[in-house]
Amino acid sequence: MASLKISASVPSPTEDSEQLRKAFAGWGTNEALVIKVLAHRNAEQRKLIRETYAATFGKDLLKDLEKEVSGDFEVTFDRALLLWTLCPAERDALFVNEATKMLTASNWIIMEIACTRSSHDLFMVRQAYHSRYKRSIEEDVAYHTTGDFRKLLVPLVSSFRYEGDEVNMTLANSEAKILHEKISDKVYNDEELIRILSTRSKSQLNATLNHYNNQFGNSINKDLKTDPTNEYLTFLRRIIKCLTCPEKYFEKVLRYAIKGLGTDERALTRVVTTRAEVDMERIKEEYHRRNSVTVDRAIAGDTSGDYEKVLLALIGHGDA
Amino acid sequence: MASLKISASVPSPTEDSEQLRKAFAGWGTNEALVIKVLAHRNAEQRKLIRETYAATFGKDLLKDLEKEVSGDFEVTFDRALLLWTLCPAERDALFVNEATKMLTASNWIIMEIACTRSSHDLFMVRQAYHSRYKRSIEEDVAYHTTGDFRKLLVPLVSSFRYEGDEVNMTLANSEAKILHEKISDKVYNDEELIRILSTRSKSQLNATLNHYNNQFGNSINKDLKTDPTNEYLTFLRRIIKCLTCPEKYFEKVLRYAIKGLGTDERALTRVVTTRAEVDMERIKEEYHRRNSVTVDRAIAGDTSGDYEKVLLALIGHGDA
Repeated sequence: MASLKISASVPSPTEDSEQLRKAFAGWGTNEALVIKVLAHRNAEQRKLIRETYAATFGKDLLKDLEKEVSGDFEVTFDRALLLWTLCPAERDALFVNEATKMLTASNWIIMEIACTRSSHDLFMVRQAYHSRYKRSIEEDVAYHTTGDFRKLLVPLVSSFRYEGDEVNMTLANSEAKILHEKISDKVYNDEELIRILSTRSKSQLNATLNHYNNQFGNSINKDLKTDPTNEYLTFLRRIIKCLTCPEKYFEKVLRYAIKGLGTDERALTRVVTTRAEVDMERIKEEYHRRNSVTVDRAIAGDTSGDYEKVLLALIGHGDA
Repeated sequence: MASLKISASVPSPTEDSEQLRKAFAGWGTNEALVIKVLAHRNAEQRKLIRETYAATFGKDLLKDLEKEVSGDFEVTFDRALLLWTLCPAERDALFVNEATKMLTASNWIIMEIACTRSSHDLFMVRQAYHSRYKRSIEEDVAYHTTGDFRKLLVPLVSSFRYEGDEVNMTLANSEAKILHEKISDKVYNDEELIRILSTRSKSQLNATLNHYNNQFGNSINKDLKTDPTNEYLTFLRRIIKCLTCPEKYFEKVLRYAIKGLGTDERALTRVVTTRAEVDMERIKEEYHRRNSVTVDRAIAGDTSGDYEKVLLALIGHGDA
């Protein structure tokens, strides 16, 4: 369930565009007004606002936003606001593109997008990537990754999994055995293991992993925890979490982004902007259960200013 | 250019449906009338006829066709007619599904569909596969293939190549070197080689292969001909042909289907039904140039009856 709050009577895209224009007028920017408008509109509404803004003022709303805020993607509020204003497919395409260029942590983000989006949404990301970067996602991912990570990531970003509920129990049984055999033999980069994780439908995988648990006494993720320092094993466990219980995966990303000294704003912004319209309510529940504190309070304690305000608005804090 | 001939004044879908109904009436079937209607309508028109037929008579045109003809996919005319009546994406999904089940020659057909369709059309095939088989293409292909063929086929069927004309010449240069190095070292199943062939846009690949030819003095396909009995090398050469000059690839498939004693009707039917609306005119030119005989004459010499008639109609012989 989405956390985004939209008031019952949403102003027209024309009124919203005029409000935004007003917020940009003169010296400085009325950030509160920008947040009031944009952080309470869904993807379809934001798209209409961008179209109406362009038609009315002959300007690109995103470019105007960039000029008004510092336009610096390193400034937390600016990054959050600009990312949020994009449509989900454009935003994900941007994350993947950044992730193929960054020196660290890139694989996790590519994997997260490949495994937690619906098949249709992932395809939309691939289309948006074509339009924006004039290349394909799989092309950039394959070029910028290596070794065992590449063997997993390329099929994951290229997948178009079946999304029906049909489950083949005989297959679930036999593939649970294959997974157990490969894991027992510690051949974690085995082709069959990668094939199963990267091609089967989420329902089918779920059945396979239940069989695994029933037949062999441990969850697959427990069996993949033999060496906590092995980055590839951690990666496999996260893939499984993303595919079978994304809300738990995102709870953990939020927890690590917030805990300790300092905040991983990039991770925090990514989770909030990408899940606010999808399953943020479920993630908030998980977070509360696991941390005995609400996400709202945790975010309020770790952030400040307009950045805090926009995040809280997106996770459904306060009125629309 | 398509070979399909559509008359300037196409009857309405209602009139076409009535003609088909008339052709099915009483004992036997008026095959000539069925061919006259269906073999002169494009995919969009056939779709409308199927919809109108279902709305008017409460029956599925494909099922009625199956009943009227023998309904046996082994009968050449029936198979050609039924395949033609399907929309291109359904038809390709069926070919891939058959190819994952057949014991021989399956890899070629999967590869042909993955490499000669546009990115958008290949995605439509993946969608049609979901609807019809309740699984994904990559799932079935990965499950039913093995070894080096699987390593190539799964990324090929999962690809969504960029289709713009932009070419990066520096990249073409460096990747031509990689290809040459791998081929010189005879590591034909190398990951980098597979990455380049399965992810780069057709324009980019073309530039890379031109660089290859210019820098190393041979075309890549010549360098891949070191061992004519090696099936995997033949496969690589065909992939390259499909990606860079599909009309030459299809000319060769037709040539081998027709030449010698007996005819490979499955291959002949596949090429005619899938290319009639796409590039059959170019294939016919290639065929004429290479064999000093027209495809029309070659097909007429090798086939007979209604099968001959429907094929000739699809390749543009006679009036619409």
